[in-house]
Amino acid sequence: MTRTLHLGAILAGVGTTHDDWRDPDLPGDASVDINWYIDAARQAEAAKFDLVFIVDSPYITPDSAPHFLNRLEPLTLLSALAVSTSHIGLVGTLTTSYWEPYNVARQFGSLDTISRGRAGWNVVTTGLEGAARNYGRDQHYDHAERYQRAAEFVSVVQGLWDSYEDGAFPRDKAAGVFLDKSKQHALNHKGRFFSVAGPLALTRSPQGQPVIFQAGDSDAGRDLGALIADATFATPDTFEGAQAYYADLKARAAAKGRDPDKIAVLPGLTVTIADTQEEAERLATEQEADLDLDKLLVQLGRPFNYHDFRQYDLDAPFPDLSHVSLNGYKGHAERIIRTAREEGLTLRAAAWRFGRWRGSFIGTAETVADEIERWFVGRAADGFNIHVSKPGAFRQFTEQVVPILQRRGLFRTDYAASTLRGHLGLDVPVNRHSIRLAQVAE
Amino acid sequence: MTRTLHLGAILAGVGTTHDDWRDPDLPGDASVDINWYIDAARQAEAAKFDLVFIVDSPYITPDSAPHFLNRLEPLTLLSALAVSTSHIGLVGTLTTSYWEPYNVARQFGSLDTISRGRAGWNVVTTGLEGAARNYGRDQHYDHAERYQRAAEFVSVVQGLWDSYEDGAFPRDKAAGVFLDKSKQHALNHKGRFFSVAGPLALTRSPQGQPVIFQAGDSDAGRDLGALIADATFATPDTFEGAQAYYADLKARAAAKGRDPDKIAVLPGLTVTIADTQEEAERLATEQEADLDLDKLLVQLGRPFNYHDFRQYDLDAPFPDLSHVSLNGYKGHAERIIRTAREEGLTLRAAAWRFGRWRGSFIGTAETVADEIERWFVGRAADGFNIHVSKPGAFRQFTEQVVPILQRRGLFRTDYAASTLRGHLGLDVPVNRHSIRLAQVAE
Repeated sequence: MTRTLHLGAILAGVGTTHDDWRDPDLPGDASVDINWYIDAARQAEAAKFDLVFIVDSPYITPDSAPHFLNRLEPLTLLSALAVSTSHIGLVGTLTTSYWEPYNVARQFGSLDTISRGRAGWNVVTTGLEGAARNYGRDQHYDHAERYQRAAEFVSVVQGLWDSYEDGAFPRDKAAGVFLDKSKQHALNHKGRFFSVAGPLALTRSPQGQPVIFQAGDSDAGRDLGALIADATFATPDTFEGAQAYYADLKARAAAKGRDPDKIAVLPGLTVTIADTQEEAERLATEQEADLDLDKLLVQLGRPFNYHDFRQYDLDAPFPDLSHVSLNGYKGHAERIIRTAREEGLTLRAAAWRFGRWRGSFIGTAETVADEIERWFVGRAADGFNIHVSKPGAFRQFTEQVVPILQRRGLFRTDYAASTLRGHLGLDVPVNRHSIRLAQVAE
Repeated sequence: MTRTLHLGAILAGVGTTHDDWRDPDLPGDASVDINWYIDAARQAEAAKFDLVFIVDSPYITPDSAPHFLNRLEPLTLLSALAVSTSHIGLVGTLTTSYWEPYNVARQFGSLDTISRGRAGWNVVTTGLEGAARNYGRDQHYDHAERYQRAAEFVSVVQGLWDSYEDGAFPRDKAAGVFLDKSKQHALNHKGRFFSVAGPLALTRSPQGQPVIFQAGDSDAGRDLGALIADATFATPDTFEGAQAYYADLKARAAAKGRDPDKIAVLPGLTVTIADTQEEAERLATEQEADLDLDKLLVQLGRPFNYHDFRQYDLDAPFPDLSHVSLNGYKGHAERIIRTAREEGLTLRAAAWRFGRWRGSFIGTAETVADEIERWFVGRAADGFNIHVSKPGAFRQFTEQVVPILQRRGLFRTDYAASTLRGHLGLDVPVNRHSIRLAQVAE
């Protein structure tokens, strides 16, 4: 099968940085305005994107970035988008640390049914330790335990999604037979963390089960991704870093007996586009000049559980953090510490480097398309999740960059499928009970 | 203020009985077809109904009624309806026994924002004991504890909904001020059952907070309703029973210092309508003749945790159930036992009486309107939640009965408000922090 590029649109209202909201084109209430999301999703669908992607976290502080402070919840948001679009995939972030598997299975299953096979679940374990206090706990779960819970949680949810085999509901009005009871299956899971009997009261969608995304970057996070993910939302900083992540993740998947081509690696990406390379670089520099160092320091502190970096000398070497917990966004935090040490960064330099979203491609539509092609061909990515929070830049991307990618034969010119699995080139998983029964019959 | 009639539409796909699905007009997959729900909601909105109502329960057995076996989940369903309608209220059932308050506050808050002030939460504690095994527990919570948990759960959720005062987000792009931090409030709740810090990352909707419905009928259920509910979904069998419930609930509310006019009592109702009274009664009898006694016995067993009544002699007196747990639908189960004893019912008679939805009005459009008026004027109800599962009957109701109610001045001819609170004549609750600050300023 030919390898094809995949594109997602990260719909995050006023944006995931501290400053995106000041863009004059962006409505200040975008994060809580369903019409903003509907318009953005339709724009992405018109450009034949694979999916829209909703980031999430169940914890805020007064210093959180504007979008995090006040935003729609992913499942309700995506269900509203499901009936406002027809083809595009709908991926939402939800934590396995503070939900019940039965409720998650029902809600993502229901979204998958409402959208007729377009749902995806971005599985996270929550990086912000303060979230624990919103859920009756003093302490967040330990990093290793979070990932063990996540693996079991996902397997329970996937088990519940198979509660009914295809054809379980003959709905024969004349004979009065609604259900074929032989095709309803309880799960009766009893594991280390969860006990869930089932069955779930929901049939499977046209794509069989929702697609699983995973975003963790630590060793445990990559192992979980290799085990369960159909796609990953990675956040590498450089082309070489992205290639290394890509090779590592696919090798881990192969080691688990999976087909590495069935995990799409889709890093986040921001773009700055202008008519000339010089103009694009000037724009990017100008945007950087607007950034507020204090806010960069807050953003830098986020993977360190909002550690306050404003207490340190900006021009001294990156501080010793051996007393700071890395239990939150462990992979991301460890990479910052490692890079700062290896490259001898000052705190100021680290704030500029890591206090912003990375993976920014800057240039003309043509050179941005070149860079996308380079990453795709060089197996640094199977595609990208584009940040939509700069409305002008997203319009330039869909109107100028996408047609170039289409002309080069890298990206679809129309949808060939109506499900998210179809867009991503993934098979519809066979119901586990149908497999078992087929084996018994052999 | 003039008292006005309220109407809700219970959208339950193929219906809450074992036989509704065989109606030739009803698509067999109505319970999982979002387009069926959208069409029904729009029909109710065209008839100026106050709200649509989604029943729910997180547990099934192979013997559950068809709708329960395979259905959309309420929050995802209602969010899809929110962007498919413009005025009608959107009420969903969700249990306080197996959710986290923080997640419930976010999802109903988000639905309320997406719908611009039309969300309602029907608070239940789950009557089916088997649900426990879908949530890691061997035993369901004890009835009394369930209601204590529910009261605390709702107070936490309502506290989270007040996380932001009005005007908390100046979003001043020139000055770079997104949030007025003095208007963000953590909850810091530490109670008997729940500890939740907050704040919730969501502003209030145009109706301030989602409307609270409550459906419990036991002593504890009525007390909870009197404490927290803006409306109740009661299930009385007779006019006199309904009057007694109505008076009791409003007296309990007054005793708690509440205005009894601010709790709407809205029983469930099925209707059978024809051109003549005789024809309507013939139709109703015919529908009853189609009922299957075995299925009525299953339905009768539901409030007794699916106790199997098929083991008893049908024509002997209603069996002694002193060995059966009433921990589930306690109020409903107790009423069945009491009525069976007082009226000397056989099991067969009890199955016919309680194994179906009650509150059926049978007649011409005119006599059904008369009966609605009698219940309304006689303070047996402030309105009704009409079952939509017989498409023909619902069409007759909206096209024939509603115009009569409108001509009599009982029901609105157009929406005077755009929020559910507005339809129900409820005030927008003032944010608790604004009240507190206003008091300090005095």
